[in-house]
Parts: sequence; C-alpha cells; structure tokens
Amino acid sequence: MKRGSTVNFDGVYVENTASVVGPKEAEGPLGKYFDKQVKDDLLGQKSHELAEIRFHITAIRYLMNKSRRKEEDVDLCIAGDLLDEITGASLTMREFDVPFLGAYNACATFAESLITAALFISSGKFKRIISSTSSHFSTAERQYRFPLELGNQRTPLAQWTVTAAGAVMLSDIPSKVAVKRATVGKVVDFGVTDGNDMGACMAPAAADTIVRHFSESGLKPDYYDLIATGDLGTAGSELMKVLAEKRGIKLGSNYNDCGAMIFNRVWQDVGQGGSGAACSSSVFSGYIYKKMLLGDFKRVLLVPTGALCSKTSILQGESIPGIAHAVAFEVVK
Amino acid sequence: MKRGSTVNFDGVYVENTASVVGPKEAEGPLGKYFDKQVKDDLLGQKSHELAEIRFHITAIRYLMNKSRRKEEDVDLCIAGDLLDEITGASLTMREFDVPFLGAYNACATFAESLITAALFISSGKFKRIISSTSSHFSTAERQYRFPLELGNQRTPLAQWTVTAAGAVMLSDIPSKVAVKRATVGKVVDFGVTDGNDMGACMAPAAADTIVRHFSESGLKPDYYDLIATGDLGTAGSELMKVLAEKRGIKLGSNYNDCGAMIFNRVWQDVGQGGSGAACSSSVFSGYIYKKMLLGDFKRVLLVPTGALCSKTSILQGESIPGIAHAVAFEVVK
Repeated sequence: MKRGSTVNFDGVYVENTASVVGPKEAEGPLGKYFDKQVKDDLLGQKSHELAEIRFHITAIRYLMNKSRRKEEDVDLCIAGDLLDEITGASLTMREFDVPFLGAYNACATFAESLITAALFISSGKFKRIISSTSSHFSTAERQYRFPLELGNQRTPLAQWTVTAAGAVMLSDIPSKVAVKRATVGKVVDFGVTDGNDMGACMAPAAADTIVRHFSESGLKPDYYDLIATGDLGTAGSELMKVLAEKRGIKLGSNYNDCGAMIFNRVWQDVGQGGSGAACSSSVFSGYIYKKMLLGDFKRVLLVPTGALCSKTSILQGESIPGIAHAVAFEVVK
Repeated sequence: MKRGSTVNFDGVYVENTASVVGPKEAEGPLGKYFDKQVKDDLLGQKSHELAEIRFHITAIRYLMNKSRRKEEDVDLCIAGDLLDEITGASLTMREFDVPFLGAYNACATFAESLITAALFISSGKFKRIISSTSSHFSTAERQYRFPLELGNQRTPLAQWTVTAAGAVMLSDIPSKVAVKRATVGKVVDFGVTDGNDMGACMAPAAADTIVRHFSESGLKPDYYDLIATGDLGTAGSELMKVLAEKRGIKLGSNYNDCGAMIFNRVWQDVGQGGSGAACSSSVFSGYIYKKMLLGDFKRVLLVPTGALCSKTSILQGESIPGIAHAVAFEVVK
C-alpha cells in the first residue's frame, strides 16, 4: 500500500502574519483585512518587477515590525514568486541578512513554503522561519501572456493575478493558532493546454490532495470551518468539487476559494477570480488568520494550488499539470 | 549575537545516487564515474527542453532501479532545474506518482534540495526522499543568453552549462555515507551585473557560506578531505579563495570546484569550466559519492553555488547576487 504524505505537527505555531496589497485587492470584499493597501501598484519603481519586489520586502519588514523581531531573530526565510527564476524572492532577500531557501510550485508555493518551514521547526533545528510569496498582475501578464500595452482581450476563463505579498512567521513558541497537519501534493496532469484556463489545470491536483488529505488523516470535510483552495477561481472550484465528489469527498458550504474570495466578480472584471502566488498568502495572512484570532474560524484547511508551466512550455504545446498542497491550521487556546 | 544557520544531522544517510550525462561530460576527466553517458544530447526528443526532462526522468528511474525501490517506497521528491518556472523538474514529476516539492536557488538548488530532504528525515516524518536536479547546455544558452543557432562568440569568463541530471536518495536507514551537517546560505550581492561572469556573481556567497560553516561548526578546513564548490569555475574559485582568506579561512589543496573538475579546460573549450544546476549533482552522484564508497574521501564538504538572475533581471540592469549552501558528507562505517 502506498505510503501517505500527510504529516501531523505538534509544536508549530503562527507567530504573526503580514499582508500588503494593491488598489484592486484593497477595493475587494476582503480589503479591510489587509495590513497595508497601496494606492499605486508601481510603488514609485521603474518597472513592475521592481514594484513586486518592493511589495515582498514591505510584507517581510512589516511582519518583523509587527512581531517585534529583528533579522537576527529569524533563522530562515523560505520564499518564492512567479517571476522567471523566482527573481522576485531572490532579489527581495538581498535586503535581509537571513538565510534563504527559494521555493517554487507556482501558485502553490505558499503551501510548499509553510510545509517546509513547519517540518524544519519540527526537526528542532530551527526556531523561527518566515514563509512568504508575492505576485503582481502586471509582471505575470507580461511574462505569461502579453504585454499590457497591447490591450489584448481576456478570455472568459482567465483569472486576475493578485498584486500583493503575504508573509507568515512560524515558530516553536506556543500561540493561538497552530499548524496541525499537512498533505504534500503530487503533480497531476489531465492534459489541459490552455494557459488561460488555470482553474482547469489545477482542479485535478486540488481534488487529489483534498481527497488524500481526508483519507490519510481520517478526518471528514465538516471537521474544518473553512476549506479554502488557493486560486482555482469560480469555474475551477466547481470542477474541483465534481472531481472530489467522484472520489467520495463531498465539499459543502464550508468550502471556498481564495481567488473567489478576494475579488467581487460582478463589478471588478476579474474573470473567474484572483490567482497568483500571493493570492493564498495574502488571503491567509490578511483575512483567514485574523478571523482565526477572532475565533470566527477554529479549524481551517488551506490548499494553495499551482499550474506548472512557463511561456516556453506552453508555446511548445506541453500540457499544464497542476499541484496542490494542504495545510491545516487550528485555534489551540 | 547572530544565530547560526549550521545544523547537525544524526541518522540521515545516502542510500544511493545516480547520474546521467551528455557526450561532452562523458569525454571529460570524470567521464567513467557517471552511471550513464548518452551519445546524443537531444535524446531523440523534438526540443532540448524535452531532452533535459528526459535526462531528469532517466536519473530518477535509474536511481530507483539501482536502489531496488519503487515509487511507493519514496516519500517525496525535492527537485529543481534552471528552466523558467522549473518546468524541467515539474514536468519530470508528471512521470512519478510521488509527492513533489519544487526547489529553486539556481545552481545551488541541489544543496537546497539535500538540506531540505535531510531536515525532513530528521523531523522523523519522512523516511526516504529523492533530491535531484538537471541542466542542459542548449536550454540554458537559449534561455539566459542567445539561441545557439546565432553562433555567438563566448566571452573569456563564460562557463559551460553541464548537460546532465544527478539524483540522490536520502533515507533514515544506516549506510556507509551519512549527511552530517549543513549550512544554509544567504543572498550576497557584490553588485556584479555581467551575466557571462557567473563565477564572480557567486564567489562572495560561496566565501560567506564557507566562512560561516567553519565558524559555526568549530571545524577547520583540513577536517575535510575535499571541499568542493558547485560551479565557480577556475576564475571564480580563485576569487572565492581570496575572499575567504580575507575572513580568516585559508583553503588548501583539499579545495576544488565541481565545475573545474568535470571538464578539461585545455582541450574541451569550456571557458572557466562547467556550471549548471546538474554540475554539483552529477559530480557528487557520479564521482564524489563513489570515491567515498571506495574510502578515497572520508569527509566531504559540498558547496553548490547559485547566481540569482533571470533574462529579465539582467536586461533590466539588476545586479546578480549569489547564494551557496554547504552540505557535509562523511563515511561512517
């Protein structure tokens, strides 16, 4: 029998979180929950790439300030983003005198980073680790699709890359919210080749990870107050629910998607909803974590989802497999 | 005082390794040590990107076969490469029903992957993990520099990206070679902007990690039979030695560089030597590990080195910082 990939944690806690978002995210339904809302998504920089780096730096600095921690208090940063060669996270880390490991699982990077940090703390060899990701609408459009200057029409299944950075400080010091368990995902390929339909690329992987999470943990979906995928968007979420139900896991009203939550599809013109490596990290850091502190959510399963492709792989006609990792947070006191 | 980032391991072992190299690497001084040498670096594929993926798949399959392990025996693969969005590793993992975490620290990715795997095994929650990386001369030239069809002249400080894949199986089952300690690197930026002089970009980070490794572990350089950086090349290695010596660490004849070892600079026309995410992984998997099994090396410090840039960051005039992580292997029985 196949060995599972669901692990339980004991003694890994969320010390604090920080989120910085752009103007469109600030206008959305979760706007008031984010720590910082900026008015200009270029942040006075000469390129959107540099602006994205500035978002990421700001989130980490703000997290340290909120937590009253200095660089020497942080053992490690595990960070990533969607820019080629994760240059966003790499150049962000120029600003910090902290050891760095770069993570990449597309928009599931935030989960990868959290799971890695939680396991490192579990090993007893690290005490405090920052997990963070960034994304930016304008850098993602240029890199994966078309320069914005072209004014291309967007397809009906397209999503809107979130302009934001989210950062979480995990530590071994007991606090209200703990990381309790996680399921590491596999690459799942249903042969989708449409780079504008990321929801369909990622839904099979999300369903696989969610189904495995419940079969390996022995829990049932209603154990959680909220099960939130990363950025499947509205159509992708529907697809995922069908796939999960075929394998015996029926998701109810406690299911939602960070990409569907962060924008209002009716008037924000975002296609199927938000996406990007910072979609799940900003929604968790801004909204979910604060709701957990308030006691509104007691048990949350966060399932960031990633589409594994590059401009080159899409142009070469390769299919776009997906990956998703699940991380469970619980209020413990 | 700054908390160190050097960790010790107890109970993490190398179960086996595998390496697959292209024709130029097979002709080099270490040729006979690699498990598989292929004659055609396109491997019958229609693109070099697909060929690189085929190298990576072959290395992992060969590692499993050598180790007599099946997919269900492997808890996790931690893999990366240099292609945009690490599509090489991501699409490689389509072929395996094994959980996957994608790593990216440029050519230091192999070290990142090993350290992460060793910490996961240390946590007691994973038992057997594959760490692997690939690189390919033709994909790297096209992506970072120029299409090969242009026939551009190479600059004197350029290096030659290794066409190979290397894979290592770490486990908690005692064997001859153990992972004993590791130092996680920081992003170090000396402001170098020449994308053809990777040695200079990475040397400051390598020196920093090596100096920190010795100050944090309390060991001296002559403790190791071999200290091998990943791919500084000949000029970069000289630069690194000067920088380390300024900080009190004098490296002697036990120091070498995987990029300098894998090719013969006199007749192989490789500039300063080999580079690429598979440079250190193939040299470790092919040469160093086998020399350790023979008892020719008893203690080895491997320091894979990475230059953190993308085509976009270079064209935008950003400097190219470096990163390096150190991993110590020892013969334990």
